Amino acid sequence: MEEKTRVAVDAMGGDNAPGEIVKGAVEAINRSDRVKVFLVGQPEAIEPELKKYTYPEEQLEIVPASEIIETGDPPVESIRRKKDSSIVVGQRMIREKKADAFVSAGSTGAVLVGGQLLVGRIRGVERTPLAPLIPTEKGFSLLIDCGANVDARSSHLVQFARMGSIYMEHVMGVKSPRVAIVNIGMEEEKGNALVKETYPLLKECRDINFIGSIEAREIPSGAADVIVCEAFTGNVILKLYEGTSSALVRQIKQGLMMNLRSKLGALLIKPALKKTMKKLDASEYGGAPMLGLNGLVVKTHGSSKSKEVCNSILQCITFCEQDIAGKIQESLTVSDKE
Amino acid sequence: MEEKTRVAVDAMGGDNAPGEIVKGAVEAINRSDRVKVFLVGQPEAIEPELKKYTYPEEQLEIVPASEIIETGDPPVESIRRKKDSSIVVGQRMIREKKADAFVSAGSTGAVLVGGQLLVGRIRGVERTPLAPLIPTEKGFSLLIDCGANVDARSSHLVQFARMGSIYMEHVMGVKSPRVAIVNIGMEEEKGNALVKETYPLLKECRDINFIGSIEAREIPSGAADVIVCEAFTGNVILKLYEGTSSALVRQIKQGLMMNLRSKLGALLIKPALKKTMKKLDASEYGGAPMLGLNGLVVKTHGSSKSKEVCNSILQCITFCEQDIAGKIQESLTVSDKE
Repeated sequence: MEEKTRVAVDAMGGDNAPGEIVKGAVEAINRSDRVKVFLVGQPEAIEPELKKYTYPEEQLEIVPASEIIETGDPPVESIRRKKDSSIVVGQRMIREKKADAFVSAGSTGAVLVGGQLLVGRIRGVERTPLAPLIPTEKGFSLLIDCGANVDARSSHLVQFARMGSIYMEHVMGVKSPRVAIVNIGMEEEKGNALVKETYPLLKECRDINFIGSIEAREIPSGAADVIVCEAFTGNVILKLYEGTSSALVRQIKQGLMMNLRSKLGALLIKPALKKTMKKLDASEYGGAPMLGLNGLVVKTHGSSKSKEVCNSILQCITFCEQDIAGKIQESLTVSDKE
Repeated sequence: MEEKTRVAVDAMGGDNAPGEIVKGAVEAINRSDRVKVFLVGQPEAIEPELKKYTYPEEQLEIVPASEIIETGDPPVESIRRKKDSSIVVGQRMIREKKADAFVSAGSTGAVLVGGQLLVGRIRGVERTPLAPLIPTEKGFSLLIDCGANVDARSSHLVQFARMGSIYMEHVMGVKSPRVAIVNIGMEEEKGNALVKETYPLLKECRDINFIGSIEAREIPSGAADVIVCEAFTGNVILKLYEGTSSALVRQIKQGLMMNLRSKLGALLIKPALKKTMKKLDASEYGGAPMLGLNGLVVKTHGSSKSKEVCNSILQCITFCEQDIAGKIQESLTVSDKE
């Protein structure tokens, strides 16, 4: 590759900023020479962190931004008012063609609003979903949409299915990804009004591998690669997934402290348990892409450590090299002609 | 108590019928003299099972029903056509005042449809939700609605909150149960159209302890006692809850078989793990009540063993002795006058 993918990284967002963010950025450029990273934020906070590492200096640049949008700030207002915040400055770089992608562990609401207002949608895209990868027994699935746009229409869900399918195939390398719609039963006539309306439309899409309905019970076992739902449902799934796993692990750990026998056993199983937990750790795959934009916006967990930041930056390379935005636009044009 | 609670039990429904159902019924009457059980189904299948046990015979009666509604049968049609099925005969007994409650591990769809068509709603109740108890770190919560009535309106959700609150307080013994609505954020202005409309209505209800929104992440830790949502969301929560737990346990077990060290550890922690799993086992609390009917219909898991059947029957005693149907009717009348 001659041209490097240019990734603007929000150095000020998330619980572990700027330390872990800077570390993740350095890791990414040390691992790939196909990327240039712009660390967006307060230079006086970023520079001391950067000094800790050695890295190819031509692949990294600091872009000053004096303000910080906090998690509690109202998203729309803060995007409008805090013009010199890392989220606004970073996303503007995409619009101004100075960057191809933006990665942030900051306020989800602000990142989503900024994506829509500052980066802008691909022509023909009705809504821009946030699509996290969730761990399953078979690997991972894309859950689309988990964003802030609730009360979706069937045409939105059809676009989500197409965009998600393209992402899983070309960025994550899943051949002919199985697309399913979240439902409360397997039969076509089951579901709420939205699902009943969307199901036949998905069945007609010749460019995706639609396998029908998926019940929530089947999600953890990896029964589909692209899981389509509107954002309220997606949000419930994503958060319950996290909540159930951590509650269960907490309970098991607590149970193991019950007596000497189980404590001894706990000591012995620790490495194995750790390995299992790592397999189920979503941060292995990087953050959640916001799809349908003229460029890529990736939202990582607020609690992101360097590994997730690094993986998210590397994810951007594939996204841009594979021209996912172009492929999405093409798929919408094809479907218009059908 | 002079009068016994009369519970019709579907002896033919579920994966383990009639064996486990009959066993559960016998356990219930051996544990309480305040109940009379009617085993509804094919006498030639029930009698050989009954012969295995000793029990107070005056507390048990077989009510013949020759047909069986299978899980795959279309609910509405089967309730209309299979007039001599255990589900139809059992639910008719409530309507005809021959029973106070009906317990079934059979087809959820058929039980729900039968509840509406055969048992009938309490006057003023707009919809009859199915409300399973789900295990949490603090004990259990009532998830209302997980039934088949999707696309609910805000007035339905308000009734669900009232009915669920009454059930948790008077049947499950939770004082001033905390009622929350499932949402994608904690703030009042968050949510989809339905939640935004329902939230202020719940805030106005003086007869419930409304604590606001609950994010799905907080459900497993037991952040609310009554969790209000429409049936599509409820169904997703219920099934994902089951799916995530079993996938995680499967993965952990598999991880423990990795090497000799972890296998040895697994052997040592087995009793502790079993105890933890038991704590998280929903069947400890009995089945899911369908609320708002002129009588009680309890749906137990299709895979129910005798313990869940027994607990569900005992649950019916409290329901009837506490006159929950009367309390529900009263709460609706009070709220009308407000």
